[in-house]
Amino acid sequence: MFLKRIVVNNVRNIKEAVLEPEENINLIVGENGSGKTSLLESIDILSRGRSFRSNKIAEVQRKNTNSMAIGGILDNGIKIQYKRENAKVRLYLNSNETKKQSDVSKNIAVQSIYPNSHQLIEGPPSERRSYLDWGLFHVEQNYRDLWSEYTKTLKQRNEALKSQKGNLAPWTEKLAASGEKITSSRKAYFENITRGFFDYFEEFLPHASNETPLSSKAISLYFSPGWDLNQSSLFDAIEKNLKRDLEKGFTSVGPHCADIRLKLGETDACKIISRGQQKLIVCALLMAQFKDYNEKTSNKSIIIIDELASELTLELQAKVLEKLLDAKSQVFISALTDSSLAEILSDFGASVFHVEHGEIFG
Amino acid sequence: MFLKRIVVNNVRNIKEAVLEPEENINLIVGENGSGKTSLLESIDILSRGRSFRSNKIAEVQRKNTNSMAIGGILDNGIKIQYKRENAKVRLYLNSNETKKQSDVSKNIAVQSIYPNSHQLIEGPPSERRSYLDWGLFHVEQNYRDLWSEYTKTLKQRNEALKSQKGNLAPWTEKLAASGEKITSSRKAYFENITRGFFDYFEEFLPHASNETPLSSKAISLYFSPGWDLNQSSLFDAIEKNLKRDLEKGFTSVGPHCADIRLKLGETDACKIISRGQQKLIVCALLMAQFKDYNEKTSNKSIIIIDELASELTLELQAKVLEKLLDAKSQVFISALTDSSLAEILSDFGASVFHVEHGEIFG
Repeated sequence: MFLKRIVVNNVRNIKEAVLEPEENINLIVGENGSGKTSLLESIDILSRGRSFRSNKIAEVQRKNTNSMAIGGILDNGIKIQYKRENAKVRLYLNSNETKKQSDVSKNIAVQSIYPNSHQLIEGPPSERRSYLDWGLFHVEQNYRDLWSEYTKTLKQRNEALKSQKGNLAPWTEKLAASGEKITSSRKAYFENITRGFFDYFEEFLPHASNETPLSSKAISLYFSPGWDLNQSSLFDAIEKNLKRDLEKGFTSVGPHCADIRLKLGETDACKIISRGQQKLIVCALLMAQFKDYNEKTSNKSIIIIDELASELTLELQAKVLEKLLDAKSQVFISALTDSSLAEILSDFGASVFHVEHGEIFG
Repeated sequence: MFLKRIVVNNVRNIKEAVLEPEENINLIVGENGSGKTSLLESIDILSRGRSFRSNKIAEVQRKNTNSMAIGGILDNGIKIQYKRENAKVRLYLNSNETKKQSDVSKNIAVQSIYPNSHQLIEGPPSERRSYLDWGLFHVEQNYRDLWSEYTKTLKQRNEALKSQKGNLAPWTEKLAASGEKITSSRKAYFENITRGFFDYFEEFLPHASNETPLSSKAISLYFSPGWDLNQSSLFDAIEKNLKRDLEKGFTSVGPHCADIRLKLGETDACKIISRGQQKLIVCALLMAQFKDYNEKTSNKSIIIIDELASELTLELQAKVLEKLLDAKSQVFISALTDSSLAEILSDFGASVFHVEHGEIFG
């Protein structure tokens, strides 16, 4: 799906804005502080109830107002809405109130690239688990339920460990059963994504040679499921750690400890490569997801890119945009007024929206 | 002072590089991953023994080598050197080994602006205390000794609080005495810097009007000394908190809790302004320091700027460079090969160094 209409009310310096975006590429241009990022942030909040820019949603609401609202209409006619009134959040799907963010989120597959998104590579493992789970949530019907069951059981087992009460075996059995299913989904998904990743990565770094350490031959991606999959079943792995778990009061192995590792030869890649290179790797990882999503659902995904220009040469910016179009995404991308990106974009038939003091001029 | 010669060995992808920089502006250009940031990082390590890019110095050293070295010759003939051999760091001043980083640092006043430097505004108070202390350390002869005395006494008082043993009064008295001196230095320095800050800030935002929230009329800077200076002396403030300090085991008021607050109307500015605007504010704060340093010591300071182009319009990049020259700084600035910054810089008579696969071509 893609967004046909976006309405934003009282988000940071945006009082009211209506955007009717293009199916493919939309460029949001403006001076520093004009409201470009706030517009992209609005799409992020609409899709997942959170902002890539701030952990505190109260900070997002325009000063001295008592409500903010973001609404969207998708090409399939579905209407979604995020409202915050007197510090209370309400979500609507086709004008009906819904309690669950996932009811809204499953209708709109949004990912974002912003100045901090090298966190996907440098940050904690939870970032990379979210990456995997984003894909599975949007592609596999029952993955979310499986995951809910797993986290609920994990919580119950951890409580039993902490209180040192009750029989742990039933929790362990249940946890291992859903954990094995999650891991098998993640593993299959990861293998599929990896192929796509390397294709994009090769395109972004065509000049890679023996002289630069960053070539697709030198780089490798590993999925680490959260226990030693080759050594034992998850049940056995949990049982083996029982003594330690009782001491620490939590379950120390399982899908909640999974990670993806990116290595350059023998070393963690994030310790060697530059920020620009990290950005390209993040782009390749996300595009591999989009391609998979498009192939499996024949739907478009939406990508928000705040400041693609930072730290990438023009040639690479053009390459990324070209590949985003191949991956069948609706793209929202911000740039400074005098950026060379605007020139490249006109070749791609992008719609350009100008932002000034929080107002949009189409 | 300024750097006349820099020699870099085994820093990240730089095997060996020699740079003979210009007194004013030096542009380091290269593709993604060519080694631009590594070169800037080397200057940072040379000046303060740490890197803005990594907390672990071991990660900086080129793979599969057992030593790295960075050397510099200043215009006054002073030679400084940072060496790391078999994981052991050695510092040299004019070829004599020295144990103290401050012996090296006081000869070379370096500050840096890099993609994360909005931390100065968004980050913890310690970032802003370091900012103040950088200036005082380079301008006031005995500030470093004063600060050493304060932190030593603080440690002793905290140990006495934790062990609940001994008479606290002598520590409190000594702590209050040096704390008052530190605060009076910081306060005077802050007032001086604030004037410079607003001058630069006005230059960077000449279009500020009632329509944009970010104008020099709306913004204000406050120095918070770490206790209520207007209510009581530091001695009284520490005494007043004695009960709480005994419970918590540390001294809860004093210069170690100082901060600078940046407000826009009634709100913390960092919650409202954009990343580009934060970057401009950081530039204005650092330039105010450089100007003060130059006026008081008639020395040049050195500024390292990694990716000035990110998130700033061309007009603002040019403005920043112009003001840096006014502030009498030696500037090292990185940019992508096809950046428009290179054009602006030729107007300023900058030296351009090309970096390819960690090698420098003058």
